[in-house]
Amino acid sequence: MIRRLLLSATAALLLSACSTADPSGPSVAGASLRGTGGLGVVIERASGQVAVVDRLQATRLATIGGLGDLSHASVVFDPTERYAYIFGRDGGLTKVDLLRQVIDRRVMQSGNSIGGAISEDGTLIAVANYTPGGVKVFDATTLELVADIPATETGDGTRSKVVGLEDAPGNRFVFSLYDTGETWIADFSADRRTPRLTRFPDIGHQPYDALVTEDGRWYIAGLFGEDGLAKIDLWHPERGVTRILDGYGKGQQPLPVYKMPHLEGWAVAGSLAFLPAIGRHEVLVIDTASWKQVAAIPVAGQPVFAMARPGGRQVWVNFALPDNGTVQVIDAESLTVTDTLTPGPGVLHMEFSPRGDRVWLSVRDQDLLRVYDTDSRREIATLPADKPSGIFFTPRAHRIGL
Amino acid sequence: MIRRLLLSATAALLLSACSTADPSGPSVAGASLRGTGGLGVVIERASGQVAVVDRLQATRLATIGGLGDLSHASVVFDPTERYAYIFGRDGGLTKVDLLRQVIDRRVMQSGNSIGGAISEDGTLIAVANYTPGGVKVFDATTLELVADIPATETGDGTRSKVVGLEDAPGNRFVFSLYDTGETWIADFSADRRTPRLTRFPDIGHQPYDALVTEDGRWYIAGLFGEDGLAKIDLWHPERGVTRILDGYGKGQQPLPVYKMPHLEGWAVAGSLAFLPAIGRHEVLVIDTASWKQVAAIPVAGQPVFAMARPGGRQVWVNFALPDNGTVQVIDAESLTVTDTLTPGPGVLHMEFSPRGDRVWLSVRDQDLLRVYDTDSRREIATLPADKPSGIFFTPRAHRIGL
Repeated sequence: MIRRLLLSATAALLLSACSTADPSGPSVAGASLRGTGGLGVVIERASGQVAVVDRLQATRLATIGGLGDLSHASVVFDPTERYAYIFGRDGGLTKVDLLRQVIDRRVMQSGNSIGGAISEDGTLIAVANYTPGGVKVFDATTLELVADIPATETGDGTRSKVVGLEDAPGNRFVFSLYDTGETWIADFSADRRTPRLTRFPDIGHQPYDALVTEDGRWYIAGLFGEDGLAKIDLWHPERGVTRILDGYGKGQQPLPVYKMPHLEGWAVAGSLAFLPAIGRHEVLVIDTASWKQVAAIPVAGQPVFAMARPGGRQVWVNFALPDNGTVQVIDAESLTVTDTLTPGPGVLHMEFSPRGDRVWLSVRDQDLLRVYDTDSRREIATLPADKPSGIFFTPRAHRIGL
Repeated sequence: MIRRLLLSATAALLLSACSTADPSGPSVAGASLRGTGGLGVVIERASGQVAVVDRLQATRLATIGGLGDLSHASVVFDPTERYAYIFGRDGGLTKVDLLRQVIDRRVMQSGNSIGGAISEDGTLIAVANYTPGGVKVFDATTLELVADIPATETGDGTRSKVVGLEDAPGNRFVFSLYDTGETWIADFSADRRTPRLTRFPDIGHQPYDALVTEDGRWYIAGLFGEDGLAKIDLWHPERGVTRILDGYGKGQQPLPVYKMPHLEGWAVAGSLAFLPAIGRHEVLVIDTASWKQVAAIPVAGQPVFAMARPGGRQVWVNFALPDNGTVQVIDAESLTVTDTLTPGPGVLHMEFSPRGDRVWLSVRDQDLLRVYDTDSRREIATLPADKPSGIFFTPRAHRIGL
C-alpha cells in the first residue's frame, strides 16, 4: 500500500534529485560543502520518508526513506543545523544527516510515541511516549538512552500517555500526562542522567497538547476533558498551575470537532496571542498580560493551526475538513481576515522562513508544496511531494519551545 | 604597529588552530563537512583579522587576516550561514567563507564606512558610507555593485554621512543621514537595481545610530544634536516620523559622555524595552505601547550596550570608561540589578547564544573571550583572542534588523 502511494510524479522527482549535480561546491563521499541555515525537512507520511529541501532555492535535495509510521511526525534540529531528529508515531526516533543526506542513526524507542524536543544545549533528545507511557531521553550524538522517566501508573497496569513535550530554558523538558492530568518538569541542568523532577498534579482533565511561548516563560496545556487551559510560569514554577480561558474547550462549542487544533504558533503582536478555537469557526485573541480573551475573529472553518508570521504582523490559519483547502490571513492590528487563499485540498501544515518573507504550505491531496511570498500572497514556487504533511526549517534549532 | 599588537599568545593560538585535526568529518580542500548553525566571528581589531569560532565547543577554528581597519566593524551572515560579510571602517567589505575559512571576496567600496545590513531575502548587502556619503548595495554572491544611493548634498561639495543602516521586512533598507537630519527607506522588493526611495526629512539634528526592533516594525534613530529619539512605524511609513522620549539625550545629562551608547539589543519582556541612558548611570525602561519612560534603573557606569537575553528575562549591560571592566545583569521583572560581574578591563561586546543559555564577552585588555552560563553566571570557558571587540554568531542570519 505504501508503494502504491508512491506516485509516479514523486518517483520522477527522486530520479531527478539523485541525478542533479550540486552547484554549491565539491562533495565528500556524496555530501556537498554547504551552509545548513537554508535547509528543511518535509514529512511524506504515506511513504515513510522525508524530503530534504533547500528553502532558499525552493528545491528538493534528497529523499530519505525507511522511517516507519510518520503520522503526526515532527522534527527538531541540533544547534549546528546539520542533524534532524524525526519523531515517528510508531516509536521510531531517526537522526538524519542533512549534509550526507542519509540516516545517521535510528532507534525504535517505544511502541507508540507523539513528538519530542531537543534540550537547550542541544545534547539531549526527549521523546513523549504513549506505550509504555513516559519520556525517554537520548544522547543527541549517539542516540544512547540516558534517562527513562516512566509516567504515573493509571491503575490498570499501564502508565499514562505523555503529550505536549516541550523544551524550556535551563535544559528542562516540560510535558503533560494525559490519563492522570499532570504536568511534569524534568530539569537536566545539574545531572544529564538523573533529572530533577517537579510534578504538578491536578492540572485538569486529559491534557492533549501544549506549547511553550517563544520567550520560554509560559507552558500552556490544552485540556480535552474539560474547558480551559492550564498555564505554568516557567520563570516561577513555584507559583503552580493557573487555569486560564475557562470558556475554551469542547463544552462551549455547538459543532462536532473534526480535528483538535494544535497549540503552536501563537502570534504575539504587542501583547496579543492568537489561539484556534475548538469546534467553532473562530480564532480567539488573548491579552497575554491578563490572559483574558479580548476578541474572537470569525474564520472560514474550524481552525487547526494559527501561526504567526515572524514579527507578528499577520496570523495564517488553516482548517479542518471540510474546509482544509482554505488558508486565511488575519491582520494582527485590525484583528480581521484580510485574505483568503485556496491552495488546494488538504492543507496540513504551514512553515514560515525565519524572517517571515516566505511561507510554505503542504497541500497533501495535490502532492504539492506551495511557496508563497508572504506580503503579496503570490505563489512563487511549487515542489512535488508525496502526500506532504509537516514542514520544518532548520532555524527552529535556534528558537525556544520548538 | 599592527604587527606589534599581534601578541605571542595569539600567534601560538594560530599555530594550534592550524594544526588541529578537525573531528567533525573529512575535508574538501581543507574545509570540513559541518553544520554552520554553531559558528561565529570575532573581530580582532588591532590586527585586522577575525577569528572563526565554534560557539558550541567554545573553540577557535581559524583566523582570517588582511581585513584592513576593523574599528567599529560589524558582521552579517547570509541565510545559509556559510558566509560572513564584514564591514570595516575603511570602506572594506569582505565576504568570508566560514567553511573553507578563507576570504571569498573583498572590495574597497568607499573611503570610510560604518556598518551595513543584508536584505531579508539574503541577496543584497548594503553598506553605510561616510566618504563619499551614501549607501552602496552589492550582490551578496559576487559583491558586484548593484545600486548606488548618494546621500543629500550638504552644500560644501560633500554628501551627508550615512548611519544607522538596518534591514527591514519587504527587502527594505532603512538608514539615516547624519548631516542633513533625514531617514530614508530604500525598497528593493520590486527592482533589485533601482530601489524605490522614501525620504523623511527633518527627523531631528544629527542622527548617529539606529535600530529596528525584532518584530521588524519600528525604526528608531538616536539624535546626537538634540534630545529625543525619532521613530518610524515600518508597517505604516505613511504615518511619518514621531518624536519619542524628549528627555533622552545629551541635554539632560550632567556628566561628560565617554562613549555614545549603542541602540541595539533592546530587551522586550512583555511590553518593556530597555535603553542605555546617555551620560547618566542609568538604563531607561520604556513602555513600548506608549513609548513613554516608566523607570530608570541605576547602574554602575555609563551604559554602552543594554542587551536582552533571548526571551527577555534579563538585560545585560556593559559600560564606558572608567567602568568598562564591569557587566551588570538587570532582572526584567523586578527592574533591579541582580548581579555585578567583573570579567576584566575593556569589556567591549556581548553576544548571547540564540536560545540564551550562554553569553560571550570580549575582554579586550586581557586578550580574552569569556563564556558564561547565563543563568548561573559561572564562567565555563575562555579563549585567547587578540584585542577582541565585536562577537557575532550565525543565527543572526535568521533575525530581523540584525
